[in-house]
Amino acid sequence: MFHIDLNCDLGEGFGNYRIGNDEEILRYVTSVNIACGFHAGDPMVMGKTVKMALEKGVGVGAHPGFPDLMGFGRRNMLVSTEEIKAYIIYQVGALIGFIKANGGELQHVKPHGALYNMAAKDYGLGRAIAEAIYQVDKDTIFVGLANSAMIEAAKDVGLPVAVEVFADRNYNSDGSLVSRNLPNAMIHDVELCFQRVLQMVKENTVETVEGNLLKIKPDTICLHGDHPQAVAFAARLEEMLRVNGILLKSMGENL
Amino acid sequence: MFHIDLNCDLGEGFGNYRIGNDEEILRYVTSVNIACGFHAGDPMVMGKTVKMALEKGVGVGAHPGFPDLMGFGRRNMLVSTEEIKAYIIYQVGALIGFIKANGGELQHVKPHGALYNMAAKDYGLGRAIAEAIYQVDKDTIFVGLANSAMIEAAKDVGLPVAVEVFADRNYNSDGSLVSRNLPNAMIHDVELCFQRVLQMVKENTVETVEGNLLKIKPDTICLHGDHPQAVAFAARLEEMLRVNGILLKSMGENL
Amino acid sequence: MFHIDLNCDLGEGFGNYRIGNDEEILRYVTSVNIACGFHAGDPMVMGKTVKMALEKGVGVGAHPGFPDLMGFGRRNMLVSTEEIKAYIIYQVGALIGFIKANGGELQHVKPHGALYNMAAKDYGLGRAIAEAIYQVDKDTIFVGLANSAMIEAAKDVGLPVAVEVFADRNYNSDGSLVSRNLPNAMIHDVELCFQRVLQMVKENTVETVEGNLLKIKPDTICLHGDHPQAVAFAARLEEMLRVNGILLKSMGENL
Amino acid sequence: MFHIDLNCDLGEGFGNYRIGNDEEILRYVTSVNIACGFHAGDPMVMGKTVKMALEKGVGVGAHPGFPDLMGFGRRNMLVSTEEIKAYIIYQVGALIGFIKANGGELQHVKPHGALYNMAAKDYGLGRAIAEAIYQVDKDTIFVGLANSAMIEAAKDVGLPVAVEVFADRNYNSDGSLVSRNLPNAMIHDVELCFQRVLQMVKENTVETVEGNLLKIKPDTICLHGDHPQAVAFAARLEEMLRVNGILLKSMGENL
Repeated sequence: MFHIDLNCDLGEGFGNYRIGNDEEILRYVTSVNIACGFHAGDPMVMGKTVKMALEKGVGVGAHPGFPDLMGFGRRNMLVSTEEIKAYIIYQVGALIGFIKANGGELQHVKPHGALYNMAAKDYGLGRAIAEAIYQVDKDTIFVGLANSAMIEAAKDVGLPVAVEVFADRNYNSDGSLVSRNLPNAMIHDVELCFQRVLQMVKENTVETVEGNLLKIKPDTICLHGDHPQAVAFAARLEEMLRVNGILLKSMGENL
Repeated sequence: MFHIDLNCDLGEGFGNYRIGNDEEILRYVTSVNIACGFHAGDPMVMGKTVKMALEKGVGVGAHPGFPDLMGFGRRNMLVSTEEIKAYIIYQVGALIGFIKANGGELQHVKPHGALYNMAAKDYGLGRAIAEAIYQVDKDTIFVGLANSAMIEAAKDVGLPVAVEVFADRNYNSDGSLVSRNLPNAMIHDVELCFQRVLQMVKENTVETVEGNLLKIKPDTICLHGDHPQAVAFAARLEEMLRVNGILLKSMGENL
Repeated sequence: MFHIDLNCDLGEGFGNYRIGNDEEILRYVTSVNIACGFHAGDPMVMGKTVKMALEKGVGVGAHPGFPDLMGFGRRNMLVSTEEIKAYIIYQVGALIGFIKANGGELQHVKPHGALYNMAAKDYGLGRAIAEAIYQVDKDTIFVGLANSAMIEAAKDVGLPVAVEVFADRNYNSDGSLVSRNLPNAMIHDVELCFQRVLQMVKENTVETVEGNLLKIKPDTICLHGDHPQAVAFAARLEEMLRVNGILLKSMGENL
Repeated sequence: MFHIDLNCDLGEGFGNYRIGNDEEILRYVTSVNIACGFHAGDPMVMGKTVKMALEKGVGVGAHPGFPDLMGFGRRNMLVSTEEIKAYIIYQVGALIGFIKANGGELQHVKPHGALYNMAAKDYGLGRAIAEAIYQVDKDTIFVGLANSAMIEAAKDVGLPVAVEVFADRNYNSDGSLVSRNLPNAMIHDVELCFQRVLQMVKENTVETVEGNLLKIKPDTICLHGDHPQAVAFAARLEEMLRVNGILLKSMGENL
């Protein structure tokens, strides 16, 4: 029987600020990536979000990013390998604090934003992230872009990995995502998104923009939580998967 | 045989900034309180400091403070009980990340600066700090001012406690420290400091500014690391204690 | 003919975060208080907000607060007089940068949140704020709570002042606001709010919770921008004032 | 008669942290670049530094950088043109606040660290910085690397410019500095540094690493303030220039 994990970002508020519909999107996912205070999130938000996620029974992961609250962690920063390792240990450690305080366990780590995009292409950066995670807890799942350098790095370091795919993004034949600067980066037809998800989960392939079939074996699908239609899309995707007999399980149960 | 712990703050740099002579002061203490990024310290500094302290074999503790880098955590802030619990879990968790990455264990937590001073008098604040620590790791030692409200709170919560005294501060008969706003707050005569330390460790009393004998049973003595004479004072205090047959052991070994 | 100014806070977003309906509330006010990056606001937000406010033709003011983004500037901080002067000069200077870049002039400064509340009762703090403003631009209007210590301080320093009243808050007979910790702090009856505003503007009195008539001579009425009903209330208040023949003019035109 | 300006960075402390010997280096320079709170500096430090510099009579400039205190503004960040303009206006405005509060005038703006290095090669970035400065005060001098893209951009925008050279750096024949990653980036022979400075000031040429003569017409020489030998080097350079009949004047007097 087929199964898949659905993940989304959670706990992206800060102080008086709120983003996304955390309670609602949480109904449809099996794993969550919780911001750790560098690009978003603060201790109060983290505590509430961890508690809510553990009560819901989903897999709880850390979502570390660059120290750039003003840019929401979406701007490339040239930090050294030593610096990024320290930033990962700090953020993951802080989140583990809240998870332990609530009696849970860390399931995974997924880099955020610019850090995710840079590590997808930069093996050394991906390896630094993976080594930091390994040093804190070698059983933590590393979530990375399918066919990316950071997935290779995480495997080399010895971490369990979860391969992430996107329902609404186009792929190049080399396995990378079509750049958001290009007009065909996103797939706006919801039915087409669903069909592609089914093909990725059941047949482990996806059609690239060049028209080839790319091998892709997803462990988890990324859902965006901060769009106006995010909750509606998540609800429909979750239903479609169930109707098609695909079991929704957190990546921790799958691996 | 008598024994005592010597503790000092460590890792108070940030980015390009350095404070104190961490390597030198580390030669004379048995426990260190490492800043966690809120009032001082950053991930790089924390990683290096934890590694250095564990290699030296001293007891490693967290030194959480208010989120006030600009004020070095020395300014009172009116934060709620829920907020302070979240700030403690975040900072202690982050430090544990570095301790785990280096194969060590957290020994203690000592609040920093204004947070320490406020919690010394405010049972509710002290209790919030203690509960946060307990939720993360109930075997962690809580370091607090002798005869203070936070020591009571930590005991009530169920944490092991270490009673802290100061070699160079005068005490009031109610057990509190003489305010730094008063001219007799500090004791500048080093020999008198030493004599008072001996009396506290061996006889468990100290003479107050009113001339009374105050009962005080120290587990650890606080050394300041950021004064120009700090290292020289630490070296002489450590020698004086050895000469007087007082064993220096980290608080974790003592309790 | 009677006239009054309506002011509200504006530009309270930060990075990816948004608060309030800046465009809509701007339709009904004559002066705005723009956050300056310490408790809210960032350079991008400040630039857009200043431009929008100047295009609308309202009086533009700075809204400096404590350096506490995580607490939105609503938590008391014990900062020294020298520190608060420096914080005011920094924030007001930064906002003037954007105002000059857009060809406008600074009209006023209104302290934010905990800083406002503390300065209302603390003459020394109010005086420090006023002196800082005076040093940057001695013609800037100081906006403060009616009958408060900071109004006195600002007058003593030589700044023009604008007395601020609240439509929806109860007053004590000593001129202070009823504490938000008390059940009768707020007035929820909109018609009663309007009636009190009319009485304050036309008769320069308001009924206190003790049943006395308090002398109060408002220059500006504070509107909250971050409530769900804020825009609707602002629209009705503005209409009510017009219907009653009260001219809406920015405080800069009035003084 | 020949003349030149000597500039150095000043006010790079933050909160409890200090860097450099501001008082001593100030004796030998004619212009200073004051950090504005993003990569270094805070309001208290800025206020004291501006006051000290104005009392000494040197030209006072703003030294804006990336919002990266943890990295001291030395790490490349991919920020948009709109963002960098807002960051410049904010920081320059804040510094002008302190300058006005002390009765002085802003002389120049020099970008800091990674921002300086990136703008030296990126005309668009340099132009964004220059446009922001122009909007705040079109008479402010833009200090940039000799022969760089940002000097071109500042001229195109209409700002007065000051061409900066380095006494202790090697140049490539295309006018750029030899990368710090290369072994011959720095010149360690002090006498050679002096000889090169004389040649740049009097003959407007410098020998490149390829052995060519590069045309270079310096308005100001950059002195580093945070090296242990910085003050001694500054003192000797200042003396050498006087002995050789080169007048030291701030760039504002020169232009």
